[in-house]
Amino acid sequence: MIVVMRPKADENKVNTVLNRLNKAGFQTHLSQGVERTIIGAIGDKTRMGDLALEAMPGVERIVPILQPYKLASRAFKEEDTVISVGDIKIGGEQIHIMAGPCAVESREQLFEAAEIVKAAGATILRGGAFKPRTSPYSFQGLEEQGLKYLAEARERTGLKIVTEVMDANTLPMVAEYADILQIGTRNMQNFFLLREVAKVDKPVLLKRGASATIEEWLMAAEYIMAGGNYNVILCERGIRTFENYTRNTLDLSAVPVVKHLSHLPVIVDPSHALGKWRFVPSMAVAAVAAGADGLLIEVHPNPAEALCDGPQSLTPENFQALMKDLGKVAEAVGRKL
Amino acid sequence: MIVVMRPKADENKVNTVLNRLNKAGFQTHLSQGVERTIIGAIGDKTRMGDLALEAMPGVERIVPILQPYKLASRAFKEEDTVISVGDIKIGGEQIHIMAGPCAVESREQLFEAAEIVKAAGATILRGGAFKPRTSPYSFQGLEEQGLKYLAEARERTGLKIVTEVMDANTLPMVAEYADILQIGTRNMQNFFLLREVAKVDKPVLLKRGASATIEEWLMAAEYIMAGGNYNVILCERGIRTFENYTRNTLDLSAVPVVKHLSHLPVIVDPSHALGKWRFVPSMAVAAVAAGADGLLIEVHPNPAEALCDGPQSLTPENFQALMKDLGKVAEAVGRKL
Amino acid sequence: MIVVMRPKADENKVNTVLNRLNKAGFQTHLSQGVERTIIGAIGDKTRMGDLALEAMPGVERIVPILQPYKLASRAFKEEDTVISVGDIKIGGEQIHIMAGPCAVESREQLFEAAEIVKAAGATILRGGAFKPRTSPYSFQGLEEQGLKYLAEARERTGLKIVTEVMDANTLPMVAEYADILQIGTRNMQNFFLLREVAKVDKPVLLKRGASATIEEWLMAAEYIMAGGNYNVILCERGIRTFENYTRNTLDLSAVPVVKHLSHLPVIVDPSHALGKWRFVPSMAVAAVAAGADGLLIEVHPNPAEALCDGPQSLTPENFQALMKDLGKVAEAVGRKL
Amino acid sequence: MIVVMRPKADENKVNTVLNRLNKAGFQTHLSQGVERTIIGAIGDKTRMGDLALEAMPGVERIVPILQPYKLASRAFKEEDTVISVGDIKIGGEQIHIMAGPCAVESREQLFEAAEIVKAAGATILRGGAFKPRTSPYSFQGLEEQGLKYLAEARERTGLKIVTEVMDANTLPMVAEYADILQIGTRNMQNFFLLREVAKVDKPVLLKRGASATIEEWLMAAEYIMAGGNYNVILCERGIRTFENYTRNTLDLSAVPVVKHLSHLPVIVDPSHALGKWRFVPSMAVAAVAAGADGLLIEVHPNPAEALCDGPQSLTPENFQALMKDLGKVAEAVGRKL
Repeated sequence: MIVVMRPKADENKVNTVLNRLNKAGFQTHLSQGVERTIIGAIGDKTRMGDLALEAMPGVERIVPILQPYKLASRAFKEEDTVISVGDIKIGGEQIHIMAGPCAVESREQLFEAAEIVKAAGATILRGGAFKPRTSPYSFQGLEEQGLKYLAEARERTGLKIVTEVMDANTLPMVAEYADILQIGTRNMQNFFLLREVAKVDKPVLLKRGASATIEEWLMAAEYIMAGGNYNVILCERGIRTFENYTRNTLDLSAVPVVKHLSHLPVIVDPSHALGKWRFVPSMAVAAVAAGADGLLIEVHPNPAEALCDGPQSLTPENFQALMKDLGKVAEAVGRKL
Repeated sequence: MIVVMRPKADENKVNTVLNRLNKAGFQTHLSQGVERTIIGAIGDKTRMGDLALEAMPGVERIVPILQPYKLASRAFKEEDTVISVGDIKIGGEQIHIMAGPCAVESREQLFEAAEIVKAAGATILRGGAFKPRTSPYSFQGLEEQGLKYLAEARERTGLKIVTEVMDANTLPMVAEYADILQIGTRNMQNFFLLREVAKVDKPVLLKRGASATIEEWLMAAEYIMAGGNYNVILCERGIRTFENYTRNTLDLSAVPVVKHLSHLPVIVDPSHALGKWRFVPSMAVAAVAAGADGLLIEVHPNPAEALCDGPQSLTPENFQALMKDLGKVAEAVGRKL
Repeated sequence: MIVVMRPKADENKVNTVLNRLNKAGFQTHLSQGVERTIIGAIGDKTRMGDLALEAMPGVERIVPILQPYKLASRAFKEEDTVISVGDIKIGGEQIHIMAGPCAVESREQLFEAAEIVKAAGATILRGGAFKPRTSPYSFQGLEEQGLKYLAEARERTGLKIVTEVMDANTLPMVAEYADILQIGTRNMQNFFLLREVAKVDKPVLLKRGASATIEEWLMAAEYIMAGGNYNVILCERGIRTFENYTRNTLDLSAVPVVKHLSHLPVIVDPSHALGKWRFVPSMAVAAVAAGADGLLIEVHPNPAEALCDGPQSLTPENFQALMKDLGKVAEAVGRKL
Repeated sequence: MIVVMRPKADENKVNTVLNRLNKAGFQTHLSQGVERTIIGAIGDKTRMGDLALEAMPGVERIVPILQPYKLASRAFKEEDTVISVGDIKIGGEQIHIMAGPCAVESREQLFEAAEIVKAAGATILRGGAFKPRTSPYSFQGLEEQGLKYLAEARERTGLKIVTEVMDANTLPMVAEYADILQIGTRNMQNFFLLREVAKVDKPVLLKRGASATIEEWLMAAEYIMAGGNYNVILCERGIRTFENYTRNTLDLSAVPVVKHLSHLPVIVDPSHALGKWRFVPSMAVAAVAAGADGLLIEVHPNPAEALCDGPQSLTPENFQALMKDLGKVAEAVGRKL
């Protein structure tokens, strides 16, 4: 890191900073210009946060040079991480489509959805049993019953299951049924929950917070990895901006950026980002073209009757058509579905 | 709510929408223009979220007319809510200053901070025992030991205690010590936690999410109130914008807006919003001028040694000077400290 | 539009609003609920802005139902607009690549760039003669000399020329040389300039303002169209968000959204949005997959020597490789390069 | 500035960077760590933009240490700039209120407004003769006739005049009538216009762009100052964020931040930021408490009849009440009205 001292910081203040850095095991390097002194410091970046240098007298600002994450970084592991979910591999040549309804509403609805997405080529079934809803008066999910239906659907179709875990208390229950544990956008910085999923032997699908920078997102992955679980799949799902025609703004550039900074696989959820089914197919093919390792897509047998997020769900017909387009674009960029 | 139909939606589609609204107990009103049909619907707004109208064929969009929250709204309760914390009343004529260190670091540090803020006129001591930190490698708080120090500091000084609760599991422990339970910005939409604090008989200080709209913030308050706890204090703490000279952008206009939309008291945390102590005093006096019912301010006996957020903490001297300025501005706007 | 009256607005206030609407030629429709009165109004949407209804006593808010633009809307013209630039057609089956250096720096640099992009398959040459620069101390462009080089390059290569016009005073000069007039992101709401380019018989490439909503962008197009120039090409170039790893956040969803709302062609500039050449190819192919009618890409014979925006410019080799990838993806989505 | 080299940048690449820096007159300082090499460079910061270092092979990123503006910086001029407008001084102990209608609509309307704001204690009359409007179909201002009314109002009341200039072509005309030239938010980076007002001997009120960082705003001031006009008054008017209950988010922290970074006076426009008159008074007193040197406030004799921005205009009664409150708060913070 670089410590920039104020224009008139005297030798005394500079030495106090040097001492604190040296005591913490940092190697320092002094650069005295005419206008101001600059200190370069090399050492364990994970200790930087506790040094509190910015509050020291004479310090103007701290410029971090290295990323604050370590295990999640491409520098730590050069080759791409490929995550196994049973016989499925996420992060390799094949692109995986995770599709299904926003919420598990009933046995029939889920099974119908599962058959549809399976037939069209999806390999993973999505469906919420615990639903984080903005309103306390909205449908909050079928909870354990929903998980049971998901497990049944898995047995019937062979699809893997991804479903959201919202709380440390219900984590053991969710982990019993799910193949992939989803951490929702609102929980990306629920550090208690991150520490708990770190202890579970299941892959984690970590959604980006709607207002999280890519660095904060990778720091959240670092929490899970530092706790012992290296199987983290990152999921871009739109960020909050001033544009309000779409529900959020899908930040597709996060795909190549994450692939540059990290070795973890990254998938895209166009359904939640857009909020309107009409625009989901275009952004799904664009995500694959941008290099995504998979997609999370809402499909409902009858969106007009959905208890949750109907407006962004594809009908079976639209999903089938999309899968065909995805196959063509995947091939054009050297991947396969 | 208003349902706007697409230009070419036929009678059949309009009737299907009308039927669903009527079945859900809404009173409907049809308005057929040359270009398109518009349906007005009056009924229980808390049921709106589950109607899924936006996904119905022929529907272009839904325009909500009423706010989606009820118990938190000014329409539900016209007079200001005043919340008692022992002998202290938040939301009345007196403005309360909640001050102290970001984190409880040690018995000595906390007691020193408590004496300083008490002497300067604060009525509530802040201090984190559980700390949500962006990095898994940063200091995460003293946990229960920190809570014990807070309780001791309360006994010594008579100050009330506000401290953050991060998780449903540790809620009973925190509730045993705290006078006010703080929900942090990252947990504003941790709906499990909101439902749990709703069951506790302690006032809740609900921080605005860094990227939450005022409506979402009030919906989070609604979660707590719908669960039975009406003692919610709202706290504006800066929102995330493109400006990066300050840590966040303090949205002071949230103060008069919340007071217009809701009856709940609202306080301001300039320390976290600004992230630089130098700008905290100006924004603290501005917050009082804008009508805030209180302030949350970080004060550290020695910011340069702080384990957390030193750069934004006031020194004892700066805090004393600020308290004098606050007194004058409070008087100028008809309040008192 | 819908006029929502306050809960206690009396008959008198409602009538005053009705009168103003009727006088302005709007057809009104009253809907009296238990809690409040709602007025539907149908009429010339272009007159809405001057009615000042929101300031009338008893009015709570105005909800526009129709888009405020007319000529730019899909409702006004159902089929896609295809814009001819000589023998080139923008908005049809063929995707056009506009490539070249950020700024025209010298005769040699421009000619070299022109040969490179022509050979790789671009049809239009980009290059700034007038450069809007954040710093008054930065290189501001070669001005008319730069325009002359562009014209020469056109003669040598047959490429069409797109270049930025920054001001009404220099518009006649720029229009003399350019095939397409570019309005930069900072000038999207320079209404004087919009009115002036409306009078010129040349296609206009209108960049989206970095903080403009899609609606505001279409309103800017409406200014040009209302002034008589219907040949507007929209260009998404990234919006400003809190994410700062990339220069801006490329809002690719703007492509399908604009195509839904408007009949105008839309192209994408990944170079300015990303600000780092490394991520440009991924987003270029994603843009084509999303449905863009063209791309604006910075290519420099030697980016390390560029006077402007070197970090985001592709080398000749990278551009050639990209063009091959673009061809494959274009074909996969039923277009051609 | 600091040049951070990539982990594996060899000596050759480092030397090429050093050479370019040295040739440009920068003094360099090498710091070779185990993981990477860092180059410190001290020299003329205004030349930094043209060095194009970021595109050089082996360079990872550039970290600027000093602000890119010079004349506008507090380092360049330590004491506050006080700007004289006739006998009025902006930036001193006295806070100046600039009030009046959004647009000059008629002789009667303007004169009535002028009398009202004068009687209540304003010293400067605001009113637009050229209006930048989002819609081409909205009222665009009375143009020169409006300027004449403003001049007449000045003669009648002794108030100074501030009015917007939108274009270099009409600048001479506006400069003939105005005491202060206003650059609107949409023109903050209209560099042609900035260069032109730099040549005029009148103070310039420079509004912050709705999505401009404080640094970009000060760079725009630098354009005017570098061109010879040192009399720049900065005006915070709200920034664009995701919050949409208010028109924009008033960034009041910009007041102390600008006063720390620059010597220029800074005023606040709560009317445009909030967009709703109801919240203007709270934010006006907050702005004064935060240290603003003045306010720009919309007042209309009859807001319900205003041709422009009626919803955010204060009635004469509300303005009178506000002026009393402002006086009290000004005194509380050691200023006067």
